[in-house]
Amino acid sequence: MRAFIGAHVVPAEKSLMAGDAAALRRAQERARAAGLWGLPLPVALGGQGMALADYADVAIVEGHSDAGPAVCGSDLLLDTTMLDRYGSPAIRERYVRAMVAGDASPSFAMTEPGQAGSDPSGLTTTAVRDGDAYVLTGRKWFTSRATHAAFTTVACRTEDGGISLIVVPAGAGGLRIVREVPVLGAGGQYELALDGVRVGAEQLLGAPGEGLAIAGERLALGRTLRCLRWLGQARRAFDLMVARMRGRVVRGRPLADRELLHQYVFDSHAELAAAEALTRAAVAALTEGTGVKNAVATAKVVTARAYGTVVDRAIQVYGAEGLTDDTPLAMLHRGARAARILDGPDESHISAVARRLLTSPAAAVPS
Amino acid sequence: MRAFIGAHVVPAEKSLMAGDAAALRRAQERARAAGLWGLPLPVALGGQGMALADYADVAIVEGHSDAGPAVCGSDLLLDTTMLDRYGSPAIRERYVRAMVAGDASPSFAMTEPGQAGSDPSGLTTTAVRDGDAYVLTGRKWFTSRATHAAFTTVACRTEDGGISLIVVPAGAGGLRIVREVPVLGAGGQYELALDGVRVGAEQLLGAPGEGLAIAGERLALGRTLRCLRWLGQARRAFDLMVARMRGRVVRGRPLADRELLHQYVFDSHAELAAAEALTRAAVAALTEGTGVKNAVATAKVVTARAYGTVVDRAIQVYGAEGLTDDTPLAMLHRGARAARILDGPDESHISAVARRLLTSPAAAVPS
Amino acid sequence: MRAFIGAHVVPAEKSLMAGDAAALRRAQERARAAGLWGLPLPVALGGQGMALADYADVAIVEGHSDAGPAVCGSDLLLDTTMLDRYGSPAIRERYVRAMVAGDASPSFAMTEPGQAGSDPSGLTTTAVRDGDAYVLTGRKWFTSRATHAAFTTVACRTEDGGISLIVVPAGAGGLRIVREVPVLGAGGQYELALDGVRVGAEQLLGAPGEGLAIAGERLALGRTLRCLRWLGQARRAFDLMVARMRGRVVRGRPLADRELLHQYVFDSHAELAAAEALTRAAVAALTEGTGVKNAVATAKVVTARAYGTVVDRAIQVYGAEGLTDDTPLAMLHRGARAARILDGPDESHISAVARRLLTSPAAAVPS
Amino acid sequence: MRAFIGAHVVPAEKSLMAGDAAALRRAQERARAAGLWGLPLPVALGGQGMALADYADVAIVEGHSDAGPAVCGSDLLLDTTMLDRYGSPAIRERYVRAMVAGDASPSFAMTEPGQAGSDPSGLTTTAVRDGDAYVLTGRKWFTSRATHAAFTTVACRTEDGGISLIVVPAGAGGLRIVREVPVLGAGGQYELALDGVRVGAEQLLGAPGEGLAIAGERLALGRTLRCLRWLGQARRAFDLMVARMRGRVVRGRPLADRELLHQYVFDSHAELAAAEALTRAAVAALTEGTGVKNAVATAKVVTARAYGTVVDRAIQVYGAEGLTDDTPLAMLHRGARAARILDGPDESHISAVARRLLTSPAAAVPS
Repeated sequence: MRAFIGAHVVPAEKSLMAGDAAALRRAQERARAAGLWGLPLPVALGGQGMALADYADVAIVEGHSDAGPAVCGSDLLLDTTMLDRYGSPAIRERYVRAMVAGDASPSFAMTEPGQAGSDPSGLTTTAVRDGDAYVLTGRKWFTSRATHAAFTTVACRTEDGGISLIVVPAGAGGLRIVREVPVLGAGGQYELALDGVRVGAEQLLGAPGEGLAIAGERLALGRTLRCLRWLGQARRAFDLMVARMRGRVVRGRPLADRELLHQYVFDSHAELAAAEALTRAAVAALTEGTGVKNAVATAKVVTARAYGTVVDRAIQVYGAEGLTDDTPLAMLHRGARAARILDGPDESHISAVARRLLTSPAAAVPS
Repeated sequence: MRAFIGAHVVPAEKSLMAGDAAALRRAQERARAAGLWGLPLPVALGGQGMALADYADVAIVEGHSDAGPAVCGSDLLLDTTMLDRYGSPAIRERYVRAMVAGDASPSFAMTEPGQAGSDPSGLTTTAVRDGDAYVLTGRKWFTSRATHAAFTTVACRTEDGGISLIVVPAGAGGLRIVREVPVLGAGGQYELALDGVRVGAEQLLGAPGEGLAIAGERLALGRTLRCLRWLGQARRAFDLMVARMRGRVVRGRPLADRELLHQYVFDSHAELAAAEALTRAAVAALTEGTGVKNAVATAKVVTARAYGTVVDRAIQVYGAEGLTDDTPLAMLHRGARAARILDGPDESHISAVARRLLTSPAAAVPS
Repeated sequence: MRAFIGAHVVPAEKSLMAGDAAALRRAQERARAAGLWGLPLPVALGGQGMALADYADVAIVEGHSDAGPAVCGSDLLLDTTMLDRYGSPAIRERYVRAMVAGDASPSFAMTEPGQAGSDPSGLTTTAVRDGDAYVLTGRKWFTSRATHAAFTTVACRTEDGGISLIVVPAGAGGLRIVREVPVLGAGGQYELALDGVRVGAEQLLGAPGEGLAIAGERLALGRTLRCLRWLGQARRAFDLMVARMRGRVVRGRPLADRELLHQYVFDSHAELAAAEALTRAAVAALTEGTGVKNAVATAKVVTARAYGTVVDRAIQVYGAEGLTDDTPLAMLHRGARAARILDGPDESHISAVARRLLTSPAAAVPS
Repeated sequence: MRAFIGAHVVPAEKSLMAGDAAALRRAQERARAAGLWGLPLPVALGGQGMALADYADVAIVEGHSDAGPAVCGSDLLLDTTMLDRYGSPAIRERYVRAMVAGDASPSFAMTEPGQAGSDPSGLTTTAVRDGDAYVLTGRKWFTSRATHAAFTTVACRTEDGGISLIVVPAGAGGLRIVREVPVLGAGGQYELALDGVRVGAEQLLGAPGEGLAIAGERLALGRTLRCLRWLGQARRAFDLMVARMRGRVVRGRPLADRELLHQYVFDSHAELAAAEALTRAAVAALTEGTGVKNAVATAKVVTARAYGTVVDRAIQVYGAEGLTDDTPLAMLHRGARAARILDGPDESHISAVARRLLTSPAAAVPS
C-alpha cells in the first residue's frame, strides 16, 4: 500500500482531488491490479473482507493522500454496509455490487442550508408518501461527489414526524445541483435542490423514522475511518516537516538544530502517538460493541486537533513555500481545518462525552 | 471610514481581492471623493499627512477589509516614504507623485525560491554594474501586485558583496512573470525572473550595500501597519461570530447561551484587546524612535496569533458554512495563516526579542 | 518605592508572610519614615490621596512582594473607603482613622464552608435584629488576617431576606477562630464561627440588604488592585527567570542561548505586557466609571493567567531549586494558583463578560 | 489493590507523606498480610515477580496515593534491581534481602546544589581511592528519605574522570544531613554533606566510571514507574473533579450542567487516555528493549503535563476549598508541579526526542 500510494496516488493527486473522473478510474484499475481494491469491504459483497482492526494499519497508509480511499474503494465501506443492511432487495440489487465493482459512486445528503449540521431536529426536507412512492422536497448542501454519484441517500422528514433515509437515483426528475460550495477554496461539495423528486417506496432504507438510528451507526464507523485517514495525512505533514528540517540551512545552521523547532517535532510526535492510540481504542470499541460513543467522539476530537496542529507546524517550518501549492501542505491545511467541523463540531462531542462521563458509575477508590 | 468600508469596499471585495484593476480604480475614486484617500501619506507628497498615532485608529477600521488600504491609498505609505527618502531625483520625480495620484502601483521583490525569506544572507539575485547601468539576474517570488505594478523594487547583491535595492520599471527587457504563486489557494503573489534586466544606475536606492538597512526601516513600519489591518480583520471575524451567536438557534437554544462558546467570546475579546494594546505600543515606539525592534516584533507575533485564533473560533461557531465563500471567513482564514509567516516567521521574532531582553540591563529590585 | 521594597520588605518577607506582627509593625514604621505610607488613601482620612491612575505605577512595584501593600498601608484602601462611605458616624470614628494610623487592621468575611464563594445566594450566616442590636450566627472561611484584625466585616442574611454587611469587633462574645485554613500549605486564612455574636445596630454598613451592592463596589476596586500587585509579583518571577538564564551554564552552554527558553522569555514578556495594558484599562474604566465590569473582569482573568504562566516558566528554568524555599518562586507559585480562584473563579468572569458582549449593541461595519 | 489503597493508605496518607516511620511500618505489614507486598520485585529476591506489563495495571491503582508504592514495597524495584545487578557479593548480601524484607530503606543521591540536575557533567562530589577504600567528599540535595534510609547510593567522580556509584551506609563518619529542602512547602527531600566519608571499595557498583550507564538504566525504568503512579494520582484528581461536579449546586444549577466544566472533563479524559497509552508504550518498549529512550521520554513529558493540567482543573472546579488541605488536591498540585522537573526537566527530553527523530531513517512514502 505504501508503495502504491507513493507511485500511483500522490503523483495524480491534484487531478484526483479536482474530481477528474477519468484519472480516478485509471487509478482504481491500478489498485485492483495491485490487489488493493476493496480491502475492508465484505467478502459477500465482493470485497476482501479485512477485519477493521487489521484494516486500521492499512487505512493510515492509504489515507496518506485524501484521494487514497476513493482510489482503493475502501471509502465505499459506509454505503455498501448501509445499503446491504437496510436496503430493500431492489436497492441491494441495484447498487451494492455496482459500487463494489467500481461502477456506482454513492453520495450522502444530510446537512441543509440555514440549519446546524449537528442538529437534525431542524431538518426541513420532506418526503410525502404518494401511493407506492415518496415525493421529496427540500434543499441540501455539503453533499460530496454529487456530480458523478449514481445515487444520493437523502435524510428527510417523513409523515411519522421522524427522519428517514431515502435513496434518490441520479437523474431523478426534480433533482438539481444548485452549485458547488467551495470549502476553503477547494471544490467537491455541492448544494442540491429537490423539487418534488418522486422515487419508489422501495428506495426507503429501513422503516420510516429509522433514519437517525441508521445514520448514527454509519457515523460511528465513518468518524473512525476518517480518524485513520487524518492520521495518515497528519503523518505526511510530519514527514514533510522532518524532511525540511533535515534539508534546509538558514543563517548557516540546519533547521534540524533549532530548538524552537524541536518543540514542534516533539509535540507533533506526541500528539500523533496519542491520536493514534485513541483511534485504535475507537476501532476496538467498534469491534467489541462497547463504549462506542465516547471512544469514537474522543478519538474524533483529538485526532482532528492533532491533524490541525501538526499541519500548522509543518507550514511554519516550511515558511512561505508551505503556503503554496508547491507542497501538499496547503491542501492538508484545508483538510485539517474542515476536520474539526465535519461529522459534528468538536463542541458537540465535548459536551456529549462529558455528560456521559458525569453520569457513569462513580470511581471505586475513595479519596 | 466605517461607513465607506461598509458601503464601497466590502460589497466589491471579491473583485478587489481577485485583482480586478477596474474595480480598484472605481473604488479608489470613491475614496478620493469621500476625502479618505492617502490619509497617512505625507502632505509634501500630496497625501493628508495624518500622524501615525492618529492614523492607527483609522487603519483598524480601514483594515476591516484586506482591500481597504489599497482602495484608500494608505498602502502606498511604505513605498512613497522609501522612494522619497532614498531615491535619486529621477526616481522621486518618476514615481512618488504618480503613486500618490493613484497612477503608479509599486511592488517589492525580496524573497527568492529555495531561500528562507527571513535570511537575506542567502540572496542570490545579482546586480552587476555596467557603465551607468546595473544588470540584474535572478529569480524572486512572493512579489505581490507584479501584474499591474509600475515598478518593482528588487533586493539584489551588488559587487560590494552587500545587498542593494534597485527599482526596476515594469516592462524592462528580461523581466518576466513566471507564474502566479497561490497562497492557500488565493492569488495575488507572483514569481518573477530577471534575465539580464538592464536599468540606469539612478534606479538604485541609497548607496550600494544599504539595501538591508533601508528594507529594515521599511519593515518596522510595514509590520506595524499590517498589525493594524490584521486587527481590523480579526475584529470583523469577532463581529461575525457574535452576530452568529445572537441569531442562531440549535436544538432549541440560542448559541448565545452556550458556555463553551462564551469561552470563545471571552478569549477572543481578551486577545484582541491585548493585541491592540501591543500594536499601539509599537506605534508609540515608532513615533518616539525608542525600543522599536522589540515593540514591533512583539506586536507582530501577538497580533498574528490573535488574528488566527479569533478567525478560527468564528469559523467553528459558524460550522460548515464558515468554511465556504458564503461568509468572508474562508478569506480571513487564509490571511490569518499567512500572517504568522509574512514579514518574518514568528520563530525569528521570538528568539530575537528574547535575546535582546536577556542582554538588557538587569531589573532594579533584588529578589 | 523600588529601593524600599528591595531594602526593607524582601529581606523580611518570610516573617511578614508568616504573620509576624512585630516585623510588620517595624516595616510599616520604615514605610512611614520613607514617605511611602498610605499613598492611595484619601487625604481627608490621613492618606496621601494619590489618584488611582498614578498609584497604579507604584502599585506594581509595591506589589513585587505580596507583603508590600500591608507594609505601605495601601491595602487599607478598600476598607477605609467602604467604612467611610457606608459606615455610621460611630463606625467611622472608631475605625477609619485608626486604620490609617496603622493601629487597626481590618478583615472581611464573605465565603462560607460548603458554599461556592462566587454564589452569595447560598449564604447562610444570619443577623437577627434584637432591639438596637444584631445577633449573628454562622460560619465563615477564607477570612484573612483574622488573628490580628481589629474588626471583621461579615456578610450575612438580614430579615429582609437580603444580604447585609455588619462590622464585628475583635473579641466580641461568640466570635471564635476555628482553625487556620492553609492555602497550598501556607497560612494566613482562617475559619470563623459566629455563635450568637451581638453587636450594636450602628455596626451595619449602609442599609439592610445593601450588602451585595457595597461588596460589589469594593470588589471592582479590589480586583484591580490585586491585578496591579500580581503584575508586580509576575514581573519579579520574570526578572528571576532572566537572571537565572544569564547566570547559569548547563552542558557548557549558558541557558540564555537555549531557544526553548527564548520561547518562555518571549511569551512571558508578551503576556505581562498584555496583562499590564488590560489592567491599566481597568484602572481607566474605574476612574471614568464606564465599562467597569468587563474591563475589571477581563483584566482579572488575563492577569491571573499571566501570573501563573510566568511563574511556572520561571520555576521550570530554575529546575529543582525553583521548587524550594531557597527562591521566592514556591511562594509566588502558591499566590499565582490561588489568583485564578480568589475574587471569583475565572469561569464566572468568562461567562459574565461574554454575556455582556453578546448583548451590547451590534458592530457598525456590515460584513 | 483498589480496596487496600482506599482502606489503608488514603486514611493514613497525611502521616505517611509526613514521613511517620511507624505509620509506614504498620501499613507495610497490612500490605504484606493482604498479599500485596513486593508485587514487581524479582522472585529470586523474595518478591512476587509480576511482569512489568502486568504490574502496570496495578501500579496505576497503587499510585492513586503517592504513599502507595512505599507501603507496598514496589518502590524498591529500582534499588533491588540495581544492587542485585551491579553490587558486589557483600552489597547484595547486606542490602537486597533486607530491602525486600522491609528492613532497609534505600536512598539515592545524584543532584548537587548549584548544578543542573540534568547535567551530570558538572558533578563535583569526588571519591578518591585510598587503599581498599573510597573517600567521598561533596554535597548532594534532593535526596529523598535520607533520614530513615539504611544506605544512600552516591553519584561521584572517581579518579578515572568518570562518574561512579558508591553505596554509603547510614551513619558513616562524615555523612551529615544538612537540612530538609521543602518542595513547594512539603518535606521529604534532604541536603547531604559528605566530608571525607570512608567506605570499603566493595561499596562501588559496577566498575569505576560506569555510574552514568547504571543510572541511565535505572532512570528509564524509574521514569516509567513514576508515569504509572502519576496516572494514578491524576485519575484520583479526575475522580474528585467529577464527584464535585455531581454533588455541587451553584446558583441553582448543578456544576455537572456547566459546559465550561464539560470542557475540563473532556480534556482531562482525553489527556489521561493519551498519557496512559504512551506510558503503556513505554512499558512495552522496556519489555522489548527497543526504542526505549524515545518511548520513555515521550511518556514522561506527556504524563507529567497531563498530571498537572488535570489537577489544575480539579482545583478550579473545587474553588477555594481545592486550595486547602481539606482535599488531597493541594498535595497533588505539589506533586504535579514537581513532576515536570524531576527525572529531567521537560526541555531536556523534548530536544533529545526531537534530535533522535530527526536523525532516524526517512519516511517511506514520498510526498
